[in-house]
Amino acid sequence: MAASDKNCCVSLTRCFFDYSTPKTLVIRSKTVGAINRLCQALVIAYIIGYVCVWKKGYQDTDTVISSVTTKVKGIALTNTSDLGTRIWDVADYIIPPQEENSFFVLTNLNITPNQTQSHCPENPGPESSCSSDQDCKKGFRNGRLSGVRTGRCVHFSERIKTCEVLAWCPLEKYDEPPDPPMLAEAENFTVLIKNSVRYPKFNFSRRNILPHINSTYLSKCVFSRDTDPDCPIFRLRDIVAEAGEDFQAMAVHGGVMGVQIRWDCDLDMPANWCVPRYTFRRLDNKDPENNVAPGYNFRFAKYYKSSNGEEIRTLIKGYGIRFDIMVFGKAGKFNVVPTLLNIGAGLGLMGLVTVVCDWFVLVFMRKRHLYRERKYSYVDDFQLLSNEVP
Amino acid sequence: MAASDKNCCVSLTRCFFDYSTPKTLVIRSKTVGAINRLCQALVIAYIIGYVCVWKKGYQDTDTVISSVTTKVKGIALTNTSDLGTRIWDVADYIIPPQEENSFFVLTNLNITPNQTQSHCPENPGPESSCSSDQDCKKGFRNGRLSGVRTGRCVHFSERIKTCEVLAWCPLEKYDEPPDPPMLAEAENFTVLIKNSVRYPKFNFSRRNILPHINSTYLSKCVFSRDTDPDCPIFRLRDIVAEAGEDFQAMAVHGGVMGVQIRWDCDLDMPANWCVPRYTFRRLDNKDPENNVAPGYNFRFAKYYKSSNGEEIRTLIKGYGIRFDIMVFGKAGKFNVVPTLLNIGAGLGLMGLVTVVCDWFVLVFMRKRHLYRERKYSYVDDFQLLSNEVP
Amino acid sequence: MAASDKNCCVSLTRCFFDYSTPKTLVIRSKTVGAINRLCQALVIAYIIGYVCVWKKGYQDTDTVISSVTTKVKGIALTNTSDLGTRIWDVADYIIPPQEENSFFVLTNLNITPNQTQSHCPENPGPESSCSSDQDCKKGFRNGRLSGVRTGRCVHFSERIKTCEVLAWCPLEKYDEPPDPPMLAEAENFTVLIKNSVRYPKFNFSRRNILPHINSTYLSKCVFSRDTDPDCPIFRLRDIVAEAGEDFQAMAVHGGVMGVQIRWDCDLDMPANWCVPRYTFRRLDNKDPENNVAPGYNFRFAKYYKSSNGEEIRTLIKGYGIRFDIMVFGKAGKFNVVPTLLNIGAGLGLMGLVTVVCDWFVLVFMRKRHLYRERKYSYVDDFQLLSNEVP
Repeated sequence: MAASDKNCCVSLTRCFFDYSTPKTLVIRSKTVGAINRLCQALVIAYIIGYVCVWKKGYQDTDTVISSVTTKVKGIALTNTSDLGTRIWDVADYIIPPQEENSFFVLTNLNITPNQTQSHCPENPGPESSCSSDQDCKKGFRNGRLSGVRTGRCVHFSERIKTCEVLAWCPLEKYDEPPDPPMLAEAENFTVLIKNSVRYPKFNFSRRNILPHINSTYLSKCVFSRDTDPDCPIFRLRDIVAEAGEDFQAMAVHGGVMGVQIRWDCDLDMPANWCVPRYTFRRLDNKDPENNVAPGYNFRFAKYYKSSNGEEIRTLIKGYGIRFDIMVFGKAGKFNVVPTLLNIGAGLGLMGLVTVVCDWFVLVFMRKRHLYRERKYSYVDDFQLLSNEVP
Repeated sequence: MAASDKNCCVSLTRCFFDYSTPKTLVIRSKTVGAINRLCQALVIAYIIGYVCVWKKGYQDTDTVISSVTTKVKGIALTNTSDLGTRIWDVADYIIPPQEENSFFVLTNLNITPNQTQSHCPENPGPESSCSSDQDCKKGFRNGRLSGVRTGRCVHFSERIKTCEVLAWCPLEKYDEPPDPPMLAEAENFTVLIKNSVRYPKFNFSRRNILPHINSTYLSKCVFSRDTDPDCPIFRLRDIVAEAGEDFQAMAVHGGVMGVQIRWDCDLDMPANWCVPRYTFRRLDNKDPENNVAPGYNFRFAKYYKSSNGEEIRTLIKGYGIRFDIMVFGKAGKFNVVPTLLNIGAGLGLMGLVTVVCDWFVLVFMRKRHLYRERKYSYVDDFQLLSNEVP
Repeated sequence: MAASDKNCCVSLTRCFFDYSTPKTLVIRSKTVGAINRLCQALVIAYIIGYVCVWKKGYQDTDTVISSVTTKVKGIALTNTSDLGTRIWDVADYIIPPQEENSFFVLTNLNITPNQTQSHCPENPGPESSCSSDQDCKKGFRNGRLSGVRTGRCVHFSERIKTCEVLAWCPLEKYDEPPDPPMLAEAENFTVLIKNSVRYPKFNFSRRNILPHINSTYLSKCVFSRDTDPDCPIFRLRDIVAEAGEDFQAMAVHGGVMGVQIRWDCDLDMPANWCVPRYTFRRLDNKDPENNVAPGYNFRFAKYYKSSNGEEIRTLIKGYGIRFDIMVFGKAGKFNVVPTLLNIGAGLGLMGLVTVVCDWFVLVFMRKRHLYRERKYSYVDDFQLLSNEVP
């Protein structure tokens, strides 16, 4: 042993060139050999099938950078006592006129014209009813009132007295939205969605107006999953219908629709295999059992000045459908680093094959004691050294 | 050797069934055995504790798709010399009336009414002072001026002469925003945030109006971390206060608040354990030592036409708080593929146990030379073959 | 064998302390030793170089939470027959006045003033020409018409007759946008982009107005990659030019620009090494061969009331550039868990070294039969037991 020590010190260089390799017992048996090869085949199938083919582990990936612009077209005609016969075009029903990845289409509205800052009686209700001025605290306000109380109790109608408020008068009536919706024709509006995507890592750009689409086709096509799957012009009714909803029902209270554009591109393949896939889904919840605060609406106003300089506004409670355009995507391209990493990790699993087969050999095989004897040597620290199984 | 070669060629089938297993030396020693089991226990504890329990490595995960709508309620009363007593409601102070994941509440403003396209003297300042027309270059403009110089030097006041500009006149005065803020009452405004989330991989949807919330509760509740943690209606003052800021101070110059909604859902658990957690944070920087360009404001105008058809506008420099609603979330559900991958990777660490123990056995143990002798055989390429340690 | 079984049952405790280590053959050869060390060096170089230094595998990472506000400055002068000489300021050309991560600058427009809800002849075209009332179906409308047909055929000009529609009249003329663009001066507008970022996991915040920037510098600096790379004020022309585009050309039909702010921060380094990098890119596609529906425009209207209460509007088809501000970023900081994981995974690759060297030893070396004989023992299930190679 001293010789060994000395030897190693003397020849450090030789030590450096030592190569250690495990001593191996080769068992020649059809049973365990078959199990061994089967396990190896499973691991290789996993590496090739799942890691390489399914997960494309040989590819470097990048996520999409996207830009979306939208343009809605269509006109609607309404006929109401307030407004008379009126045409609504895109400047009227898209609010605000441009957004980043979203557009809102007005489908229904309650309109309160000619509001001015003045005094008027509140709408009747448990909180606002009064019989004398003492019931109306001057200056009182809260989130559910439309204005600030002046402290007076006035006639709302012949029979009903309510507190007077300083507010935009006349007040908006608390009404359910009209059903059928006022802009029921919105279902025939079409929207052109222009979407450019880019994978910066691969310097690869693409847009959803595919190269084979020309202006003639674009001027008259409408998306249809069967006949025109590449047309980037969508009829609003079709978007809602594809999500399994009814446009007219949704238009009454409004809602939120998701237009999902998925760009999954394998850049090892020809570039024109990289096409968008459109799916549509209602994003707000219309769970019938949990229908608190349904739909989507907001209030906005148009401000005017009367001839005497007083500010007048038209208040609109607008119900409508907001379309959120969501662009997803992942591109992959062959790269040597992830390939090596995945193959390495896969080969690591080969070590498990030996564990499985050893367990089989040493537990189930007829000659297991023989194999154990040949595989294991024992050295015992407890007592005397023994060269073989004690 | 020739015999071995021939044999292998002849019985390729037999070769196929060869199973190689490493020959193993079993050391029976309490010390190294204990170290071995301890290391193995550590690895297993890591796999179970960190990978499985903490990181939930047995789950397939998906990130959230979210849709947010908001509705602010509340009124404010202002009393200024310019405007008189005036009520501000939601159509007045939410600009623009709808956005995708954000809403802006006006809290303070400088108003410049009755602007028309005309000529007026610039506001005094080092750049605009003049003594004669020669000081004012006709057509000169830059980003800091409000208009285009006409080339004339006119009286701004009795004593001060400034260059005349073609602009929206009268010009906006360069003033600090009013303090206290004009819409100080905005702190009592409430906002209903409706948030629907979806994990597409698991076809799982959820909204922040939880199933047990009914309309009665929703009509009067206000979020409070202690008493009403599930109420989706937030008082603006509370949002700002939870972020450690003072609403009145923030309202003067405006700012940006983040409303973070986190949905971390373990879908192996009952669905109603999946609830949103709200946190609030000021997003813009109010570092007092680095307070260049603080707050958030923007200019917008309301356009009118005078009786003679001239365009008039009211310019408003609006200060306010923008609330950005950010939805985060990850859902996990048991899946066999990540489970196997994580267990496999964990078992790979078992190989390190042998490295650690071997190092201990061969370096520290009393009988290390014996173990080395029994573990290693040597074959020397340098000189004659030697069967044992030279 | 029975003795072995019995022994194991009796001393289960002893079994527990069994430590198994592979028996190893040490080959002392310069060739294979060099290959072995070379492979090991490669693996270590990979772990240190790629995993630790390049990919910073010893760091825990977090993605950025960002808040962006923008403020555009500048005025433009237009001189048209419709509008006369007119000044455009920020309240006129930013639409809508505030957005979350985006701002739109109007650069060109077609204006149709004084529209009212009334009857007028359609613009001439193949669809709208008519010779008698029978050609115009009453109530007919579609997405390409501007209104609803009244059923009458009227004179558009002396020679041309078209169908009459109920619409916002007079109709917008189908014109190409003016070239040069009306707000050509928009190229000199500047925008202050305020961006605060936050890495919540590390409780680290940062803004793009760096600590060394004071108000004096901020009041006059303009971003320039060479001289003022830290100035957060950008001239629009520079943004477009850096993306390789021509502002004046882009301003005619509009477009979408991406302003990318990248915050890649190594938090093991001093905090002030964490600075934003700005890049600019045109996001919409201007592929000359695929120029269907180029640019970016939308319609919006300003609503007025005439003295007799009739609603009048000015319709504007606005062309312009939308600037989308995209904030990316990843921060890393030393953490013991990813460090151990990456080192562990790297060491797992060491196992591959043995595979490579074994293959070399057993296939290419002169004494391969000797090594094979010493490395492998055989046990044969097919026939009689044989202790050595048959």
